[in-house]
Amino acid sequence: MSHKLLVHNKRFLLESGLSLPKLEIAYHTFGKLNADKSNVVWVTHALTANSNVYDWWKGLFGINDLFNPNDYFVVCANNLGSCYGTTGSLSINPDTNEPWYAYFPEITIRDMANALQVLKEHLGIEKIHTLIGGSQGGQIALEWSLLQKDISEHLILIATNAQHSSWGVAFNESQRLAIKADRTYFSNSLHGGEKGLVAARSIALLSYRSCETYVKTQSRDKYLSSNASSYQRYQGEKLVKRFNAYAYVKLSEAMDSHDVARNRGDDVVSVLKNIQAKSLVVGVKTDILFPVSEQRFIAENIKDAVYQEIDSLYGHDGFLIETKQLSEHIKQFYQTSTIKIKEEVI
Amino acid sequence: MSHKLLVHNKRFLLESGLSLPKLEIAYHTFGKLNADKSNVVWVTHALTANSNVYDWWKGLFGINDLFNPNDYFVVCANNLGSCYGTTGSLSINPDTNEPWYAYFPEITIRDMANALQVLKEHLGIEKIHTLIGGSQGGQIALEWSLLQKDISEHLILIATNAQHSSWGVAFNESQRLAIKADRTYFSNSLHGGEKGLVAARSIALLSYRSCETYVKTQSRDKYLSSNASSYQRYQGEKLVKRFNAYAYVKLSEAMDSHDVARNRGDDVVSVLKNIQAKSLVVGVKTDILFPVSEQRFIAENIKDAVYQEIDSLYGHDGFLIETKQLSEHIKQFYQTSTIKIKEEVI
Repeated sequence: MSHKLLVHNKRFLLESGLSLPKLEIAYHTFGKLNADKSNVVWVTHALTANSNVYDWWKGLFGINDLFNPNDYFVVCANNLGSCYGTTGSLSINPDTNEPWYAYFPEITIRDMANALQVLKEHLGIEKIHTLIGGSQGGQIALEWSLLQKDISEHLILIATNAQHSSWGVAFNESQRLAIKADRTYFSNSLHGGEKGLVAARSIALLSYRSCETYVKTQSRDKYLSSNASSYQRYQGEKLVKRFNAYAYVKLSEAMDSHDVARNRGDDVVSVLKNIQAKSLVVGVKTDILFPVSEQRFIAENIKDAVYQEIDSLYGHDGFLIETKQLSEHIKQFYQTSTIKIKEEVI
Repeated sequence: MSHKLLVHNKRFLLESGLSLPKLEIAYHTFGKLNADKSNVVWVTHALTANSNVYDWWKGLFGINDLFNPNDYFVVCANNLGSCYGTTGSLSINPDTNEPWYAYFPEITIRDMANALQVLKEHLGIEKIHTLIGGSQGGQIALEWSLLQKDISEHLILIATNAQHSSWGVAFNESQRLAIKADRTYFSNSLHGGEKGLVAARSIALLSYRSCETYVKTQSRDKYLSSNASSYQRYQGEKLVKRFNAYAYVKLSEAMDSHDVARNRGDDVVSVLKNIQAKSLVVGVKTDILFPVSEQRFIAENIKDAVYQEIDSLYGHDGFLIETKQLSEHIKQFYQTSTIKIKEEVI
């Protein structure tokens, strides 16, 4: 395992027309690039995750898992705008020598993909064997595949969409309203908006799970409440210890920006037809935030894409939890796509 | 139409053991009590509604609707803890001569039902023809029917439950976290927590609708956002103009308290068997906050209850919107229950 920081001392142009004075990208690599450079697995991570994919996607990434570091050279970078080392709200604006906080410029999923391209070029990686991401990570992987048509041989998109839905936007907006209801957000300081972030995480959690998850895992026990109240607070407070309200707002706005058709003719169907990678699209049947209709739509419009659904009690979070089912679908997908290649050769 | 205030100058004991120095109940009546006092329809309202049922439940309550004031004597009281005239957070605590705000004591759905009983006795109503309520109003109607076994001939429960689910509690807790993230809540003043209440309403709205509602009614239109963002803010700000953060918190806590089995042996199934009224239970197929499994459960356990489901694009809010379907189900229910009575007579 290697945890590194790329310091790219050039202005980084954003989709908005603004630019960042410089770009830093924190990233992990695991395993070794093989002789023919054909074993690169690149992971794009979701909202509050980080570049240590062997920590947060266990069961799929691990010594004994499908994506083990003996077989693959795994790369995962912290997303632009996040707070795990890559340039974001907590970074110092070199023009003011102060952290950006709320003044970090608006970024889009496309900007996040462009930042990954800088890292890819720095690492000298020519072709990615598999580009894989779930949720916001899937949005980034899809955008990157449209920005760089030959980016990867295989593309695996899980619990994600081609345009962020108005439902998803409404969930994100509710979270931002909660963060900004906490007036300390406007203090533009390290701990600004923390109480709001507790509420935001509590809201987000509802969208990551489902009624069934709560009913089956949380019981009523108290006079005026239930375990669910303290669980929500606990999860919110847990996030505050490892995340930042300003970064959260910027990343949630970036998610809302997601629309593969923007400035590409506004026809999502035609845009998706430009994807060249062999694609596997996976939905979680119980996902209420990214309903399976969104993944089905992607799969229907990417040429020869394979579509699979997984079962889970955990809704959207199923993409992180149901690694056994995911592994099986990916193995099957590799077999099918390999057979296809052989047939073409014959 | 008549809008009155009952001032009950006696201490009102709460389930917690605390008591209110006095109880005021704001209520509306519509139409006239008939000679044999058999035409009383009593409506119990939901979270942020008020006693003017002809204003908020049009299509079911109106001059030309099923519950028209020519046929029925309709009573609706503002709930205990609300801010439309009945004793609640904005009332003056006579012991301090200051409004209660956050210090209003914790109340339960059972307390809210007991307050209605005070009004019913004041009005000299002996038997209610139909007791009807949806959502929190359904919780109150169900509790009242358990506290006063012969309260009504017919009981109509819509989009409600017998115990508030941990899922519902998690939604309410997220809203309270948002309100309290707004530190002005702790100023204990008239406008305290208003920014938090905007966020809370935005969250609540997600639970009142569904992904399909948003996708079909809100479109993407802007660079970094969609109509959904401004819609959420607008709805939040609209509530702030007519509601109060302290009352909202108390009422949401009361909803979480809802458990018909509390101190009744803790066996919901047995408790529901005590309902004596002819009951109609209605679920909205797309309701994510009070899923139809909850109404089916109630109907299965109330003796001879009729169960119906209605279609709606609007999720939980369908109970307020789909008044045509509701009216049909209620008419059919009345016919069936009348036939039953006749058969018994024969």
